[in-house]
Amino acid sequence: MKTTIIGLGLIGGSIAIDLRKGGVATRLLGVELNEAHAKRALAIGLVDEVLPLEEAVRQSDLVITAIPVNSIRTILLKVLDLAGDNTIVIDTGSTKSQICKAVQQHGKRAQFVAAHPIAGTENSGPDAAFSGLFRNKTNIICEPESSSAKAIEVADLVFSALEMRTIHMDPVEHDKHVAYVSHLSHVSSFLLGRTVLDIEQDEKNIFNLAGSGFASTVRLAKSSPDMWAPIFEQNAEYLSQALLEYIMHLQKFQYYLMKRDVKELHRIMTDANRIRKVLEGIELKQQTKQLIEK
Amino acid sequence: MKTTIIGLGLIGGSIAIDLRKGGVATRLLGVELNEAHAKRALAIGLVDEVLPLEEAVRQSDLVITAIPVNSIRTILLKVLDLAGDNTIVIDTGSTKSQICKAVQQHGKRAQFVAAHPIAGTENSGPDAAFSGLFRNKTNIICEPESSSAKAIEVADLVFSALEMRTIHMDPVEHDKHVAYVSHLSHVSSFLLGRTVLDIEQDEKNIFNLAGSGFASTVRLAKSSPDMWAPIFEQNAEYLSQALLEYIMHLQKFQYYLMKRDVKELHRIMTDANRIRKVLEGIELKQQTKQLIEK
Repeated sequence: MKTTIIGLGLIGGSIAIDLRKGGVATRLLGVELNEAHAKRALAIGLVDEVLPLEEAVRQSDLVITAIPVNSIRTILLKVLDLAGDNTIVIDTGSTKSQICKAVQQHGKRAQFVAAHPIAGTENSGPDAAFSGLFRNKTNIICEPESSSAKAIEVADLVFSALEMRTIHMDPVEHDKHVAYVSHLSHVSSFLLGRTVLDIEQDEKNIFNLAGSGFASTVRLAKSSPDMWAPIFEQNAEYLSQALLEYIMHLQKFQYYLMKRDVKELHRIMTDANRIRKVLEGIELKQQTKQLIEK
Repeated sequence: MKTTIIGLGLIGGSIAIDLRKGGVATRLLGVELNEAHAKRALAIGLVDEVLPLEEAVRQSDLVITAIPVNSIRTILLKVLDLAGDNTIVIDTGSTKSQICKAVQQHGKRAQFVAAHPIAGTENSGPDAAFSGLFRNKTNIICEPESSSAKAIEVADLVFSALEMRTIHMDPVEHDKHVAYVSHLSHVSSFLLGRTVLDIEQDEKNIFNLAGSGFASTVRLAKSSPDMWAPIFEQNAEYLSQALLEYIMHLQKFQYYLMKRDVKELHRIMTDANRIRKVLEGIELKQQTKQLIEK
């Protein structure tokens, strides 16, 4: 399939690599407003050509959007307007309610698939892209009943080439759950970074005292504000709820700390230890897939 | 040197392995109240013998304590009482003010070195111990002027065998800085785990939606409450300050989120991105040492 990728960063670039590798994309067109990124994506061969949006979409069998979620709505409606009757359009943004609502009434809604392939690193731009970013991860498709059978078939081809497992979810449920499981951990990490930088004016102290635990917890604070600010805005209601719950837990902990109520602190931490089981499940999921591959 | 390790968990066990490997410990005695841990430590050869405290200390040239910080004070005074005039005692606890204060007036204070080798994993017990846990990490020694030249010399031997870099720090300064750089990241992780588990009653949702970012941020929530509750209690004042600052940052973020002030959210995250430089410094420190070794 002649494929257009809109947005040649970590996500778009990694999709391009694996769609070419998997034989799904026979020719790859890129749309990228950042000129330096466009040049770099061509130089490292992520796409064969960088074209203006209109030109790229008109000649494509498949269009995938991988841009910050605040731009998706506008771009998406434009892409659907331009799309031929056989062109399939897939969006990969991290929030889904507003996007699903925006396209609901569009005449070509059936040619569209609302997806969220859950993967990423704290790096961004074309140079951050790599083959295997999505391997063994979960892809969410929202409102599959609004997509045509052909559109779902093409999406299956795409996400199989990325080696993902696809599940379905209501867009509102999706946004609510990712607020807790993904967006909250990013906010907690960003602000942990901020707090520590605020206090430790002398960065040498952080450098000297940081163990691997600190590095791991604060890793997401390196993430791209350009990508995350729009996600947080679009998911403001649920993320705000999640943040308030998190703050409440922190305040309770601080209260018991000031009371020197070690028993209660111990109980809270023991309860949090249950996350071990969940994390082991995640690791197991990865390992099982790797074993099958061998 | 005939060496006693008090506490045969992750820290004590890993010290034992590398002191034997480095030839610093010619014979290793263990003191361990948890019978299962004692048996296991013997079975995997962490120590040559497990003995009662008194018997072990009386015949040792070197005693290292690696037990939860709430027990150190009592045990340490007992160990110093029992120690021969040539025995050196090193403590490895994560808080230093209370411990330094407790031994200040002891007749054998000069035989004691207050250290904090900053390393660890989220695992605990003798089976979690491994060679190289401390490699290229920082060791803090507090009040070196209160230790005899011989005591410092022995400590140098020990921490060199662990391949650590030692710096000096005032005990109060130490506790203040580790509250921000180490203890706060543990609390933030424990409570992130708690918040998510609270909301996602169905753990399958976490499992499906968690990317590697979540796993990394919440990794420390697997840590041992037995070890951390006493650390938090001993460092309650500074940790509480750090927590309040962290909560304030989270509340501000939530405020801008509800106002949909994307510009301000973006600014906060961009500022937090400065942590990248610090983390790169930490990674560089590791790599440089590895290159030198090659």
